This record gives sequence, C-alpha cells and structure tokens, in this order.
Amino acid sequence: MADANANADPSGEGVISKKALKKQQKEAEKAAKKAERQAQKASEADVVEEDDYAKDRYGIPRMVQSHEKPDRKLVKVDTLTSALADQTVWIRARLHTSRGKGKQCFVVLRQQQFTIQGILNVNDTISKAMVKFTCGVSKESIVDVEGTVAVVGQKIESCTQQDVELRIQRFYVISQSLPRLPLQIEDASRPKGDEEEGGQAPTVNQDTRLDNRILDLRTPTNQAIFRLEGGVCQLFRDSLRKRDFVEIHTPKIISAASEGGANVFTVSYFKTNAFLAQSPQLYKQMAISADFNKVFTVGAVFRAEDSNTHRHLTEFVGLDLEMAFDYHYHEVLDVIGGMFNDIFRGLRDLFATEIATVNKQFPAEPFKFLDPPLRLEYLEGVKMLKEAGVEMGEEDDLSTPNEKLLGRLVRAKYDTDFYILDKYPLAVRPFYTMPDPTNPKYSNSYDMFMRGEEILSGAQRIHDPEYLSERAKHHEIDLETIKSYIDSFRFGAPPHGGGGIGMERVCMLYLGLDNIRKTSLFPRDPKRLTP
Amino acid sequence: MADANANADPSGEGVISKKALKKQQKEAEKAAKKAERQAQKASEADVVEEDDYAKDRYGIPRMVQSHEKPDRKLVKVDTLTSALADQTVWIRARLHTSRGKGKQCFVVLRQQQFTIQGILNVNDTISKAMVKFTCGVSKESIVDVEGTVAVVGQKIESCTQQDVELRIQRFYVISQSLPRLPLQIEDASRPKGDEEEGGQAPTVNQDTRLDNRILDLRTPTNQAIFRLEGGVCQLFRDSLRKRDFVEIHTPKIISAASEGGANVFTVSYFKTNAFLAQSPQLYKQMAISADFNKVFTVGAVFRAEDSNTHRHLTEFVGLDLEMAFDYHYHEVLDVIGGMFNDIFRGLRDLFATEIATVNKQFPAEPFKFLDPPLRLEYLEGVKMLKEAGVEMGEEDDLSTPNEKLLGRLVRAKYDTDFYILDKYPLAVRPFYTMPDPTNPKYSNSYDMFMRGEEILSGAQRIHDPEYLSERAKHHEIDLETIKSYIDSFRFGAPPHGGGGIGMERVCMLYLGLDNIRKTSLFPRDPKRLTP
Repeated sequence: MADANANADPSGEGVISKKALKKQQKEAEKAAKKAERQAQKASEADVVEEDDYAKDRYGIPRMVQSHEKPDRKLVKVDTLTSALADQTVWIRARLHTSRGKGKQCFVVLRQQQFTIQGILNVNDTISKAMVKFTCGVSKESIVDVEGTVAVVGQKIESCTQQDVELRIQRFYVISQSLPRLPLQIEDASRPKGDEEEGGQAPTVNQDTRLDNRILDLRTPTNQAIFRLEGGVCQLFRDSLRKRDFVEIHTPKIISAASEGGANVFTVSYFKTNAFLAQSPQLYKQMAISADFNKVFTVGAVFRAEDSNTHRHLTEFVGLDLEMAFDYHYHEVLDVIGGMFNDIFRGLRDLFATEIATVNKQFPAEPFKFLDPPLRLEYLEGVKMLKEAGVEMGEEDDLSTPNEKLLGRLVRAKYDTDFYILDKYPLAVRPFYTMPDPTNPKYSNSYDMFMRGEEILSGAQRIHDPEYLSERAKHHEIDLETIKSYIDSFRFGAPPHGGGGIGMERVCMLYLGLDNIRKTSLFPRDPKRLTP
Repeated sequence: MADANANADPSGEGVISKKALKKQQKEAEKAAKKAERQAQKASEADVVEEDDYAKDRYGIPRMVQSHEKPDRKLVKVDTLTSALADQTVWIRARLHTSRGKGKQCFVVLRQQQFTIQGILNVNDTISKAMVKFTCGVSKESIVDVEGTVAVVGQKIESCTQQDVELRIQRFYVISQSLPRLPLQIEDASRPKGDEEEGGQAPTVNQDTRLDNRILDLRTPTNQAIFRLEGGVCQLFRDSLRKRDFVEIHTPKIISAASEGGANVFTVSYFKTNAFLAQSPQLYKQMAISADFNKVFTVGAVFRAEDSNTHRHLTEFVGLDLEMAFDYHYHEVLDVIGGMFNDIFRGLRDLFATEIATVNKQFPAEPFKFLDPPLRLEYLEGVKMLKEAGVEMGEEDDLSTPNEKLLGRLVRAKYDTDFYILDKYPLAVRPFYTMPDPTNPKYSNSYDMFMRGEEILSGAQRIHDPEYLSERAKHHEIDLETIKSYIDSFRFGAPPHGGGGIGMERVCMLYLGLDNIRKTSLFPRDPKRLTP
C-alpha cells in the first residue's frame, strides 16, 4: 500500500517538499479531529443552539454501523431530470464543491460521472446556522441530502444534470473528508490547455495522480475508463463463450521461466525458487492437448522488463485464447477477428456515455473498424512502407515507428483503425511458430493492430513434437530446458493456434489515450509498486 | 513445466522406478520414431503395396500445416444419433481403444466427454492391410474418420452414443500418440471399487494423475469438472453484473504484505523486494473509496501456507466482491446470498450433463439450497452444536470439525447444503471488521458454507479512519505498517462490505468432491510446482 499523501501536490503545479507535506498533513489531521469533535457535539442534540429551528435538519449523525434498516430510498443522481419536477428525493453523493453567498449556499453533488447543483436559502425552515454548517463541510465528504427537484430557467452548464437543481431541505454528513486534498478533482478532470483561466488553469501531473490514485480515480474520466475496461473483458468473454470456448485458469507461479528466462520475476517458494508466468502460453496449449478444444483465460501476466515506456507495465491483464482448428489457421484468424469486432461494436453501442465522458477530457477520433476486419499480408505491409520511403528488407521485423507509420498508411488507404497483419517472416517469430507450408521464409503467424500499435501476437503453433524439437534446435535452444513443453505434444495433439492480448492496451488504444497507466487501476512499472 | 513422464505409472497400480521408466520411455520414443518413418513411407503412395485396393483410404497424411482449406465438414460425436442413420460423416476424434478380431477391427472414438463405437470389416473396399493398420494405431492418437452412421440392435453400453455405431470407410492419423501411456484414460475414469474385474480393476492415484495432467484431464470427468468450473465464474460475474457491479483488476505484486506478513510469498522486484497479494481486500476497498460503488474481481491469490490439506492450495482463484451499502450490511448479505443462488441454479440448469458425468465416477448427493438462503446467527449455530454435545464457549471460533458437524445438523434440520452464519464474535475476526452496534462482543460479519465447509468470509468493514485506528491499536497492530490502508479512508468513504470466495472450493463442494486438487487445472501446493 502507498502512502496516499507521498509527493502530494495540492495545486497540481509541481511536487512540494516532503517536509511541507508532512506539516500540511498534520494540520489536516488536526482539523479532521477537530471537525470530528464538533461533529460529535453536533450530533448530541442538546449542544445545538436551543433557538436553531433547523437543528434536526442537518449535522453529522453517528457512523453507519448497521443500527437500522430505514425505509428511506436513495435515488441516483443520473435519474434526476425534469420528469421528477417538484418531487422530494433523498440522495447520497459526494460534496463536489460548495460556495457560500450571503444567505445562500450553492453546492455541487457528485455521484461517479454525474453531478447536480443543490441550493440552500435561509428561510422559515432553513436556519442561518444550517447554511453555515453546509458551507463548512469539506469537499469530497459523503453526504445524505433531502431536496425537491426544481426545473431551472437556464441550463446549468457545469453539471451533467443541466435542467434541474435540488432545493435542499436536509443535509447530513455520512463520511467526512480531510479538508485539504492532495489534488483537486476539478483540476484532475480538466482537459489540457482548457480555455478556463485563459488556458492557465491547473491540471495534475501523472505521478501526483498515481500517488493519490483513490482521489484521481474519482474523476468522471476515470470512472468512465474503468467501466469501459470492465466492458472489454465482458465482451471478450461473451464473444468467445458463444463460440464454445471454455474459460480456464492457469498457474501464475511456475517452476521454470516460461519464455526463455529473460525478463522473469523470481519468487521464493518455500525452500526453492519459482517464477512468475510471463504468459499462459504453455498452459493454454496444454489445455488444448488435454482436449478442451477452445479455451480462453483472463489473468495477470508479469514481465520484469526494466523499461519505462508509455505502453509497458510489469504486471498487466492478459486476455488469452487458444483453439484447435480443423485444416487451416485462418479458422483461428476468423474467430479472433470476429471477436475483436464484437468488442468494438459492443463498446461503441453499450459504452457511448463513457466514451463521450473520456473524450471531453482527452479528445480522440472515434475508433474505426471494418466488418470483416482488414487482413493484409506482411509483404503487402512492407510494400506500403517502402512506397512511403522506408528502407527495409522483406524479412526484417517491423520497428515500433514503422508499425505506427504503417497504421497511418492503412488508415489513409482503408479507413480502419484495426487490421490484421498475416504471414510474418519466420525468423522474427518464436521457435514454436508453424512455418508457412509453401514459403519457408514466412510463417503461419500474425499480429493485430489498433491505431498503429500491436495489441495481439499469435500463430499456428507446431503440434508435432519431432518437428518442434527440430525448430528448437535450429533456434539453438537447449532441448533439455523445454523437454516438458515438447513432451506435452507426445500423446496426440490437434493442430491449433491462438493469441494473447493486453487488456490495458486495448482500452488505451480504443479510447486513443497516450499512456497505459491511464488504463491500469493501480499500475506497476519498474519505478512504481504503490499504491 | 513438468516432466510429463516423471513417476509415470502405466498400470496405474503404483509408482515404478525411475530407471525402468527411462528405459520404457526410450523404447517408446524409438517406437514412435519407427512409426513415424513408417508413416512417412505410408504417405508416399508408391511405397504402399501395389495390390492394396484400399491404399487411398487410410494412412498418415502430412502434418496439418494449413496447406489448404477443404470443404470437408467435421461433425461432433455428440450429434451422432439415430437421426443421422445411413448418413456418411467425417469426424476428428481420439482413438480411445481399438481391438482386432479376425477380419474386423472395433474402435472407440472419443471427443471430450463423448464416445462412439466404430467398426471396420474386410470387404470389397476395406483391405486386410487397412484393418491391420487401424488396429496398430496408438491409443490417444487423433484421427480423421469417414463412416456411415448405423443404428445398432443392442445398446452399446460402453459408449455415450449408445444407439448408433460408425461403419468406417476411411481412417487417417492426424497426430500420433506414443504407444505407451503413463496412465490409461480408462483407469483414470474408473470409479473406485467399480464392479469391473470384481472390484479389482486399476484406478490411478492422485500424484500419477497430476504428474501426467494432460492425459488425466482427458477423462470425461475432468472434461466435465472444468467446463462446470468455467460456469461458476460466468455465473458469478453475470449475477453481479446484472446488479450493476463493475469488474476490476487488482495488482498481484504489492509493496507490503497485505494481511500481516505471515504466509506471504516474496518476489525479487528489480533492486527491491515485493510480495504476492494474499487477497485483493485492500484494493477492492480502495475501489469503493474511489467511487466505483460495487466491484468484483476474479484473479489469482497466493498463500504461502506450508499445509498439505484436502482444501488448501498455495495459489487459487479468488472471486471477490465489495459494495457500498446504504444503511445496513444485510444489504450486502442479500446480494451475496442471491448471487450464490444464481450460481447454484445456473449450475443445476445449465450443467446437468456435466454433473451427471462427474457423478458417474464420484457419486454425490445433489446439492440442495433454499430460496432465499438460510441465514442463522452465530449464537444459534453454537446452540445447535451444544445440543449435539459439543463443548464450546459462545465467543469461541468454530473449529473445522465443528463447522462440518454444524453443516450436518443444519442439513438435517433445514434440508440445505448452503447457509449463511451471521454475527461472528468480534474477537475472532480481523481488526477492520465492524463491531455489532448493540453487542460489542459480536460483529457485522459472516461466513458462508457449502456442505459444511467455509467458502466465503466477509463483513462490514470499518470506513471511519479514526475508529479503524482505534481497533487496530486494540489488536496491537503497529499503525505505521497500515498507515496507507487507514489513510485510504480519509477523503470520505461510504459504508461498505463484501467477501471473498475460493473458486476451486465452490466447484469442489458443489460436486461433492474430496480434494481441491480435483478442481484446480494445474494445482500448486507446497510440494507441487509442476506441471
């Protein structure tokens, strides 16, 4: 767990000193304790001023400890529209902002992606003390509010519920926030270079966000990103389940480094050492040898790569699949291509609100795809690159910049952000990749791309143990180290293929975001283990 | 990866010496190579005897390397019924058994849980050489077979397709198995004490099974178990998604031991050490503090417990959920109870074939549950145990034998295999458990049981940071070590609760199996890291 306040940056403009921070934090804690003491007093009715006619209408009730099961129904902020005009409702929400103005108090109440304005006026039932109390509650506190839904003359541009406001009658604090926040939700929600304050309004840098992830995740954008990411998993599974895939779970702790030994984390396992699986590759193939026919698995994969790029994490969620096929690995390509289209269609149709919310802060072109997906052969890709002036051999691997360039060329020519590149050069693929049956320089393997970045790598695998040994020898791999892998095909194995997908990458690239840390709930990289 | 042949036991009757094994294996490999050479010859048409009129009807064709996309459609074994009488079909299946008998060869072909009998007779189209070839193919090889569906006079008891057999016309080997298997699928599929051979027919012990998991998993029982287990995950998620839960993914590599430091695996993380998460507890609570409201996560959890029981693994799949509630943690209990009933109903209705298949080998009573689920208070449970003669205090924890006994008492009285035990003594629960609001000796916490074994532990959590600190102090926990946990509630946190479930346990107990290794695809325990 992280120190939620480490390197906190209240202004969002830079990192302040640890000492200053500690001081701030102490003050905050002191203030919180004071507030709590006051709260305790407030909740003891006799302490409230005798002459406060609103004394029962506000305050800090005792902690919700499951004392009772009241009938009171809480409604959701996103249901508050003019259809509910003049109705009195209860909501539980965060106090997003508050602003006192004479005998009035304006508040904005937030629930995940949704916000509504509330207003208190001193009158026969609302006392001055009540308005003062409401204005004094810390932002981010959770409050229970009773109010009447009122249609407003002019749209409230700053809230998602623009046609109505809440005339507040009761206001109770359920959980208090510290008064000083290490970052402001409004700053963390602001698009870069927003016109507010002439483009000078503060935003929050990435480390400050991640150091204070609990607060950062409360922004409408993050609420939308991770709801959509849940959708990616759901759509992946639903699409494969309807194609008769079986969900499996593969071990993360393994006895030998699964892909060669480089970039693998070591675990102390009782009196021996073990490793963290870099992919479920071998296990999903074993599941095929074990007659499961078509399998998928969603789970953590680990890469001990000491690289700090925008698209690498040391731990991410792998969406993996593997299937036996009848005659040709294009049967696998058809399934994976169809699955991606199911995901793209599903995201577009089911998560339109979330996409719009994210775009407000991080504008991006809508994601384009073709049905069926575009499939190019590797040599066609090389040809397009050469025509664009790139110098490369026909059996060279694609560099990351060339991948990106090819993505742009493909988009210009075919109007799609997703495509499949088939028939990679054999030399640039792992030893277990099935060579092309007619041209031994190429292979039955493929990558898939979203907005010019690789999101899936896959192939027909060699299912014949003798041929697999031969190919491993060709790659100068010590057969002893992969004996059990090869042996797993000795009791009959069907022809099969598959691929592995990075969940965070799919989500990042679908939304057109610039950093994979934006789509990992609590990201891990060589420099970050917390929170 | 395991050595697939280590401690192999071809007879299933005990472990043979390593030396003997090695010899066997060498022989097997030699035989395989010979078979392959023969195969290669066989596939070269001119080598086949000139006078074999069936020479195009059998053999070992070249490896499936995606040369072509033939129109030939393979049908599934479970679709072969009398409705297809006299039709000619192609199937791809494993050669389960074969038996020569004069000019005939009987084979059983297997596809996952399903089997069909095939027969070859020497005649005008089928040559003697073809029958001999078919009889000589190793069991477990994958074969492509063309045949005519024929209705049989007497039911074929030994196959799942009992009303028909396949009159084979073509027989090709797609992938050869080694002729000697470390275990026999038939032995591994046999119920203990089966009447076959007077109850003396061999079965396969657990270590042999797990050492040769790829073969073991091919039994109809294992095919059914893991299909049903996939269903447990699917039903868990579907049930929660329809209740507006969001799927999240929490990091497995963490910077501090999440639950105290005992039983935690250490990972080398670049220049520092890290740990494997023992549960997603803190992260799912952080997701609640971060406004996700209701979350679930399915993923690996790790316990470095050096205990070798029937129900402990060092790595298992956790089905975890956490939710904010309005007033009373029974809102959480209602959701979890309803979710379990969705799972039980779904398994019963969607996996009846799988349950029947498993029961054939491992008989068990059907799983009983009530709607809504039975909910007992802890003190009622203690009372039932006392009445049954158990001596225990009202605030003592339940021992494992007492849990089991209580399960039997509950089943006798209420006729259910699932129940919820609510309001555990505070002293036996973790520091973050919310105490009962009226009786400080008890708590807002619960366990849930299937067939008398605990499968979920959960509670209302303390969401107030000051109170949480107080409770931690009471438990003599150094506040510095849990500072970030406590701090995560300082910016407003709703009342919330949840629970964690072991997927393998749910599957094991639902099916009435006796060991959790039967429901883990590739189990991990202190003594097993492979395959």
